[in-house]
Amino acid sequence: METKYTEIPFTWPQGFKADGVHAGLRKEKLDMGWLYSEQPAAAAGVYTTNQFQAAPTKLTKQTINLQHQLQAVVLNSANANSCTGAQGEQDAVQMQKLAATKLGLSTDLVGVASTGIIGELLPMDVIAAGIDQLQLTDNTKVTEAVLTTDTHAKTVAVTCQIDGKKITISGFCKGSGMIHPNMATMLGFVTTDAAISGTLLQKLLSQATDTTFNQITVDGDTSTNDMVTVLANGVAGNTPLTETSADYATFATALTYILGELAKKIAADGEGATKLVAVTVNGAWSDLEGQQVAKAIVGSNLVKAAIYGEDPNWGRIMVAIGQTDAHLALDAVDVTLNELPMIQASHAATTDVSKLEAPLAGTVINVAVELHNGTGHGQAWGCDLTYDYVKINATYHS
Amino acid sequence: METKYTEIPFTWPQGFKADGVHAGLRKEKLDMGWLYSEQPAAAAGVYTTNQFQAAPTKLTKQTINLQHQLQAVVLNSANANSCTGAQGEQDAVQMQKLAATKLGLSTDLVGVASTGIIGELLPMDVIAAGIDQLQLTDNTKVTEAVLTTDTHAKTVAVTCQIDGKKITISGFCKGSGMIHPNMATMLGFVTTDAAISGTLLQKLLSQATDTTFNQITVDGDTSTNDMVTVLANGVAGNTPLTETSADYATFATALTYILGELAKKIAADGEGATKLVAVTVNGAWSDLEGQQVAKAIVGSNLVKAAIYGEDPNWGRIMVAIGQTDAHLALDAVDVTLNELPMIQASHAATTDVSKLEAPLAGTVINVAVELHNGTGHGQAWGCDLTYDYVKINATYHS
Repeated sequence: METKYTEIPFTWPQGFKADGVHAGLRKEKLDMGWLYSEQPAAAAGVYTTNQFQAAPTKLTKQTINLQHQLQAVVLNSANANSCTGAQGEQDAVQMQKLAATKLGLSTDLVGVASTGIIGELLPMDVIAAGIDQLQLTDNTKVTEAVLTTDTHAKTVAVTCQIDGKKITISGFCKGSGMIHPNMATMLGFVTTDAAISGTLLQKLLSQATDTTFNQITVDGDTSTNDMVTVLANGVAGNTPLTETSADYATFATALTYILGELAKKIAADGEGATKLVAVTVNGAWSDLEGQQVAKAIVGSNLVKAAIYGEDPNWGRIMVAIGQTDAHLALDAVDVTLNELPMIQASHAATTDVSKLEAPLAGTVINVAVELHNGTGHGQAWGCDLTYDYVKINATYHS
Repeated sequence: METKYTEIPFTWPQGFKADGVHAGLRKEKLDMGWLYSEQPAAAAGVYTTNQFQAAPTKLTKQTINLQHQLQAVVLNSANANSCTGAQGEQDAVQMQKLAATKLGLSTDLVGVASTGIIGELLPMDVIAAGIDQLQLTDNTKVTEAVLTTDTHAKTVAVTCQIDGKKITISGFCKGSGMIHPNMATMLGFVTTDAAISGTLLQKLLSQATDTTFNQITVDGDTSTNDMVTVLANGVAGNTPLTETSADYATFATALTYILGELAKKIAADGEGATKLVAVTVNGAWSDLEGQQVAKAIVGSNLVKAAIYGEDPNWGRIMVAIGQTDAHLALDAVDVTLNELPMIQASHAATTDVSKLEAPLAGTVINVAVELHNGTGHGQAWGCDLTYDYVKINATYHS
């Protein structure tokens, strides 16, 4: 089956408006924004597994779960409204109300997202003033307003044909530290003008998250605020997608592509990172074990520090593989580094160390593992561990 | 029951000899050593859970498991003899044979330990020359010969009365990076002149490891070579200890103290570390969950970087607690920092931030967590994450 989509410069799908402003939560940068659909959109979300879910995360989850619909999402950076107790929950509700009132919507159609420092109350006067400023525009300022320690906005968009209609899927996200497994690893927002039911959208998002956002790691910590939401407003006019639609696979593939590209952009922009580390595992006992092994490699501080040092210290990759509980053929592990043999049959390959050092000087490091123990496959993405990671995180608060 | 022991300056228990030499594996520092008992000693061991167990680790495990006896252990630093295949296994056996021959022992009574770079074959001529040089002395050079990136030797000794006899328990260890859970997290060697059976010693060691070595972390990676062994030669002349002996608790408490102190010394000397982080958890659902929460806090890169930055960023401690699957009363978590309230009822405590910064300037950071959700208790030890950790690990190999 052909599943064809084309990447395009970032743009909003039909029927979506947005804006971003400087409300005053940050010194100078944009710090509040929103997304709006001209008609209610099918909505789906995935949320952090951290037990201390932040107030906005819980509120958006509750709101989406009502009827899998949203028409707007309002967001702020600089303050996570997390570990803020009953007052924090009231503040999240108030932020939802303020946005709903300005947009003339029921609060049940408005999601809320916050990111930033944990444990401080939202300055609600600043939030209110920010919402006052927000307009319905075609600009992409919201993709900047959501950032914290990110070095740049992260966006991706594709177009494809569904049921003879041209549809667009556009995603943006933020996330640089506190990036790790088991959902949702950051804030991600995907909009599309395709028509699809909320429950089917939820199923697609949950499936695609397992192999995309849940397979990146920067530092092994899972935030209290992580969330990815998808809004599909149907303005493109296709017959609503079902699992038996001719173009269902096209949509699913395109959405997974968007989520995967966003995830990789987060890994590459990990706090202090200088290199994207992309690991592919083949020959695993199962796909799940392939993902587990890939994730273990990108998650190892020792591997990450060696890559920063441009040092082909392959023993650390073996250590990372060996500390999983994946089924292994202990003497049969092959690993290549940017296609150069690095480990063969669990031993040093014959490739000259100097040749292995060369690819490590680049900014994308591809590690391919062949476990020769099944047909399972997995991928994961991470970054190197650098002085700047320590610097950023030793001084973030003060 | 009184369980009294006294810490003493490091010394070998009665009937033990040792030595350390510079064989040439390292440029200048001591790099080979051994331990010897004048009579066969009861022996116990715990070993890495990494699936790629190094050749010497596997060989020592096999040897101890034969009859829970050893009379000597020979060791080297600078080369781990790990991921070295069939040749590596032959080399470990050869190292065992060379030491056994020189000491006039059966190979079944000789353990082997190696630590250092993974994936390079042992230079057996250097190993043989090193064993040639080793003597039976009272010096403590072996405690230095075992070191890699450690900044100093790690030793501890206690004396206590067992069955009216004075017995000594002495431990030393190495370990600075690749330090993490699930055994054995480094090389540790404990000797005692107490009389006790090998199987009971094994039981005691395995129990004590869970709350000591398995509760430290430096970087989340588990080496292929980790191992702790205990040798008890009975020269003190006590009636062999059983679980019903009057002084059994004294011995068990003293041995656990030795293991705990060694573990803490490793955490404090973690690669690049400037501070020891000691976490105590009370009020957990179970002891296991208490240990899990304590370990999650010392294992969080974000917490570790904040402590390096002397920044009381308590939200990161909440993040670490929340990403476990321990049972939590979400609104009831209290945390103190060197006894100053930092988090109360899952919110910021009223303590001035400036007061919280003061203890962070010290070299021992005590974090005490009260979960108010049971009677479980746990402890864990780690260190801060520093520029030097990255530097050491970005340049170790090349």
